[in-house]
Amino acid sequence: MRSIQSMSIPLAELARNAGCEVHASEDPLISGASSIEDAAPGSIVFALNDRILDQAETCSASAILLSSATRASQRPTLRAKNIRLAWANILNQLYPPDRPRYGIHPTSAVDTTASVHPSAEVGPFCAIGAGASIGERCILKAGVCIGANASIESDSILHERVIVGERCVIGPRNILHPGAVVGADGFGFARDGARYHRIPQVGIVHTGCDVEIGANATIDRAALGETVLADGVKVDNLVQIGHNCRIGANTLIAALTGLSGSVTVDPSVTMAGQVGIADHLHIGEGAILGGRAGVIGDVPARSVLVGFPARPRREFFRSIVLTDRLPALMKEIDALRQLLHEHLHSPLEPEVPDQ
Amino acid sequence: MRSIQSMSIPLAELARNAGCEVHASEDPLISGASSIEDAAPGSIVFALNDRILDQAETCSASAILLSSATRASQRPTLRAKNIRLAWANILNQLYPPDRPRYGIHPTSAVDTTASVHPSAEVGPFCAIGAGASIGERCILKAGVCIGANASIESDSILHERVIVGERCVIGPRNILHPGAVVGADGFGFARDGARYHRIPQVGIVHTGCDVEIGANATIDRAALGETVLADGVKVDNLVQIGHNCRIGANTLIAALTGLSGSVTVDPSVTMAGQVGIADHLHIGEGAILGGRAGVIGDVPARSVLVGFPARPRREFFRSIVLTDRLPALMKEIDALRQLLHEHLHSPLEPEVPDQ
Amino acid sequence: MRSIQSMSIPLAELARNAGCEVHASEDPLISGASSIEDAAPGSIVFALNDRILDQAETCSASAILLSSATRASQRPTLRAKNIRLAWANILNQLYPPDRPRYGIHPTSAVDTTASVHPSAEVGPFCAIGAGASIGERCILKAGVCIGANASIESDSILHERVIVGERCVIGPRNILHPGAVVGADGFGFARDGARYHRIPQVGIVHTGCDVEIGANATIDRAALGETVLADGVKVDNLVQIGHNCRIGANTLIAALTGLSGSVTVDPSVTMAGQVGIADHLHIGEGAILGGRAGVIGDVPARSVLVGFPARPRREFFRSIVLTDRLPALMKEIDALRQLLHEHLHSPLEPEVPDQ
Repeated sequence: MRSIQSMSIPLAELARNAGCEVHASEDPLISGASSIEDAAPGSIVFALNDRILDQAETCSASAILLSSATRASQRPTLRAKNIRLAWANILNQLYPPDRPRYGIHPTSAVDTTASVHPSAEVGPFCAIGAGASIGERCILKAGVCIGANASIESDSILHERVIVGERCVIGPRNILHPGAVVGADGFGFARDGARYHRIPQVGIVHTGCDVEIGANATIDRAALGETVLADGVKVDNLVQIGHNCRIGANTLIAALTGLSGSVTVDPSVTMAGQVGIADHLHIGEGAILGGRAGVIGDVPARSVLVGFPARPRREFFRSIVLTDRLPALMKEIDALRQLLHEHLHSPLEPEVPDQ
Repeated sequence: MRSIQSMSIPLAELARNAGCEVHASEDPLISGASSIEDAAPGSIVFALNDRILDQAETCSASAILLSSATRASQRPTLRAKNIRLAWANILNQLYPPDRPRYGIHPTSAVDTTASVHPSAEVGPFCAIGAGASIGERCILKAGVCIGANASIESDSILHERVIVGERCVIGPRNILHPGAVVGADGFGFARDGARYHRIPQVGIVHTGCDVEIGANATIDRAALGETVLADGVKVDNLVQIGHNCRIGANTLIAALTGLSGSVTVDPSVTMAGQVGIADHLHIGEGAILGGRAGVIGDVPARSVLVGFPARPRREFFRSIVLTDRLPALMKEIDALRQLLHEHLHSPLEPEVPDQ
Repeated sequence: MRSIQSMSIPLAELARNAGCEVHASEDPLISGASSIEDAAPGSIVFALNDRILDQAETCSASAILLSSATRASQRPTLRAKNIRLAWANILNQLYPPDRPRYGIHPTSAVDTTASVHPSAEVGPFCAIGAGASIGERCILKAGVCIGANASIESDSILHERVIVGERCVIGPRNILHPGAVVGADGFGFARDGARYHRIPQVGIVHTGCDVEIGANATIDRAALGETVLADGVKVDNLVQIGHNCRIGANTLIAALTGLSGSVTVDPSVTMAGQVGIADHLHIGEGAILGGRAGVIGDVPARSVLVGFPARPRREFFRSIVLTDRLPALMKEIDALRQLLHEHLHSPLEPEVPDQ
């Protein structure tokens, strides 16, 4: 393995670009970011809190990024209000993304009626259909397939083997990770006795700005109209989004989550991994669906649900605790029955089966 | 985005072809299907019941498709016994599928010993192995890989990047959605101390007529013999079907469902999303497995199961309701104990722990 | 479908190579392995126990492989201490894997700075990036994409459409099944008000010896450092492994399982299908996570957990049984209250709500 290429940047410059305060008597050259375990001279590490800072101070890194709430340190430090945002900025400075220079790779198959902006890059073995358009500065890596009349707007990156179906629209600055399938047919059938017949899926998928779709995730086209992922939606790997879903802005959807058809999600919802949502439901703004939540009813805004069927977090965990107390409860009832029997001399038939 | 191409067809002709009754004083030209929200002059919409018809009558669509049970309307209407089936038919008339004309695309790699019927279409970057055969009128879109000696029977559509492994057999009129992998090795190992050694998977996958397999779904080849998807099986996106499963005719399997090895499914079973089935189980005819059902025992025909472990729907939801009543139940027991204590003057130690 | 090619090997030779005892008066030529149902003269079948041996003796197979604990048979038999391991060996003899002879296929796109060992095979439409290296005897099937500076060590097989991201390292004798994505970006974002910004993921994925990764599975690269799959890890189809996970040697992970970021798994753990593990947890050596287990806390070595939240198997199933007894329990409490009421003449208000 070759190490990743990185820039060497003076700490003060790194800080200025990232909007951080700098506290250092020198201005070391920073040439990489690392975890505390892998730190080496020249690297910057980050410490979310005082406890992690204790560890960071023992490592050989040349600088430490701190949040504004963390204590001071004798070591060269940067301080940021939003430590994660500053960290992202610093990483982008140290590891500027490598833009491939394919032009239109000679092995690609671009339909003569497709339009590819001269500033876009089309990698090997890409297939671009009739009437499709690829916007300014887009990057299509190896093996990307773009259907007829699909439109990829400016500055989007489509990683290896991404598929975008016919007529779908991918907004500006999207990142589609390897193997993602956008615009496959929805799962819609008409029953005819025992048999099922496909209902043609004639809608599209339409994504806003700054959307990400994870590796091997699948977003189905609408039966009619549009499946929508609004601005800033981030979808993780192996997620399934059914036809005609509408996902509100800045919603996060973690891996292996499945949304059935026609689910409406308001903005800023968070779904952890393996969540499932039944069809035609509404998820209110800012709701949080915990890992593995199985949603079978509408979800009010800002609620926090877990379990199956999904219930408020507090209720769910209380029911788990109470269920664990059932053996003791049953003994208690036996004791009460016994007491009554002894004192009242009345015959009491146990009604709780033994098994 | 360009609008989808559609035909313009007089309402009466549309009705005749779809086997619908027509109720209209004129014969408007229909040029598209839409939802009620997106309706415009020239479009047809559908109304499943009286309530939706109320809405449909306020939109500008030129015609409304109704089920036979829906009330009459003053608007031009079609009436069908099976409204979904009629809708599918109407969509197929308005949006006849666009057949690509690749011939054998010059960028494809077809082994000299493979046989491709002259009426089939082989898209760019398809790789077809030795001895494979592609039947009449099949369509292979970009990047499809067909293993050695595999057979794709007539009229099947293999979407972008589908993989069919060596010797597998895809029946007539199958639709394999983008990224589906048919015939990868099953997950079979022999343990040797701490280590695992692969057991060669020398069987195949064999699909019947009219089978669909969803985007990025995976159907493993048998260890020995065949993994079978019988006629009319419809598999959604991101489904895993293990080696040696046998899926009965007209079974529906929704997204993110996983079947372990050697599961036998009788005909006309319905599995909702994220269902899981342990290995070697039998699922009886017509059973319905609700979303997220985790099946760890055989399932009788026509049962309706949910939850983990999967139980009859009624039992499962009753247990949820009863669990929610546990706090009240515990208070009740406390009250009984208290009463006994007061009236009998006998010391009663609580046995239910506090936590 | 053409039958699979097989060798014809005398039973005694098959036994000797597989380390089995042979019990047979003749030395039949074995030309295939089959299930008992599909047995034919010339085939060998296996019988795990006496009951299956009863069936096997009625079939027309020419030989039966037995475990050392199974009873003797009049039929030609092989006997092995580890029957599964012997079976794997026999299958490898009868069906020696077919090594494709692509050389470097003329349709592939290999960067001039990449290094491909002369003994490796690179199939059609493979894209190999700058500085990447492909080791001795590796096989890359159609459509494989290798990122810049990635390294594929000796004897690994990358099936159709596998993607290995830049700088990732695939160890010796790995098998990557079709569509697997190794080294996509982790799901890491910095929040800025309502919006999320990608945190650059600059680490890699590093696999040991003899690792397998299933079809369409996704293994994310580390944010910093490495996501590690140690020697002998076997990952099934459609599994998601998040950034910075470290999976211990000889761990099995079945289909549709998802590991969040930074999960540490000790050696020899078994995860059944659809397991989910929250981020930053530790799974102890030899633990067994049953199908659908949802893990939200650290797991001690050698524990056996199921359910959500994952609990010891015994506890989980006891709680299910007890929950099923709740209706009887409630009747019991009613009866006790009734008794007290009758005997004590004191007013007792029911506190258990009716619903």
